[in-house]
Amino acid sequence: DIQMTSFESIMEFSQFKKNPQGLLPVIVQHYQTGEVLMLAYMNEEAFNQTVKTGRMTYYSRSRQKLWLKGETSGHFQYVKSLTIDCDLDTLLAKVDQVGAACHTGNPTCFFQPIVGSDNNEKSPVQVFEHVYQTI
Amino acid sequence: DIQMTSFESIMEFSQFKKNPQGLLPVIVQHYQTGEVLMLAYMNEEAFNQTVKTGRMTYYSRSRQKLWLKGETSGHFQYVKSLTIDCDLDTLLAKVDQVGAACHTGNPTCFFQPIVGSDNNEKSPVQVFEHVYQTI
Repeated sequence: DIQMTSFESIMEFSQFKKNPQGLLPVIVQHYQTGEVLMLAYMNEEAFNQTVKTGRMTYYSRSRQKLWLKGETSGHFQYVKSLTIDCDLDTLLAKVDQVGAACHTGNPTCFFQPIVGSDNNEKSPVQVFEHVYQTI
Repeated sequence: DIQMTSFESIMEFSQFKKNPQGLLPVIVQHYQTGEVLMLAYMNEEAFNQTVKTGRMTYYSRSRQKLWLKGETSGHFQYVKSLTIDCDLDTLLAKVDQVGAACHTGNPTCFFQPIVGSDNNEKSPVQVFEHVYQTI
């Protein structure tokens, strides 16, 4: 697979609407599977580094410093595309993920269902009830 | 299709880690296509209403009030699943979206690419370069 290593952005960070902490939330999605991997935050330096290097770089709110994702784990995220939303306050990044996105070792940070399930629309009981109500 | 209209959550809102504004960011994804539709925010009342009614309900930061998505447009979002992330500070909602998610009429709020493109991995030029480097 070919990794793009340098991009240009058609918008500058100053054009985005930041949250009260001056950061831009970034939704990170696997470019092939569509799986949502994590939510992270960027400051201007993180955004510019991401665009320049093609590797997702965030601002760590806990450590209060720049955070090149994968720097210690090797689990880099290579940029495939960046898309800004309608009101310019959230970024969607499609990435090629090396290894696991989550520090727990899970492929995604979203592994704890609290309501419903991914397969609830296929539940045999529901299908039965639907058929039952129809006949 | 069968819409679930009432759920129970195995976690309470008080267990989540809120942002400095006391809100929980929610990534909203179409349950079938995997398309990321929007990012919104919940307070405790919004979360409880969402779980109780099966319709995505947010806290509008601009209007500073509860916001039942689709209340004026009819573009409701029916909950399929809610998943909390590893550090309990972000929710992923898989939904069945009625109509367009975005107030602009676009299916998703993410329609403005600023870097790369969704199809850059399928670019004929890239495929050619890959083949060229191989031979």
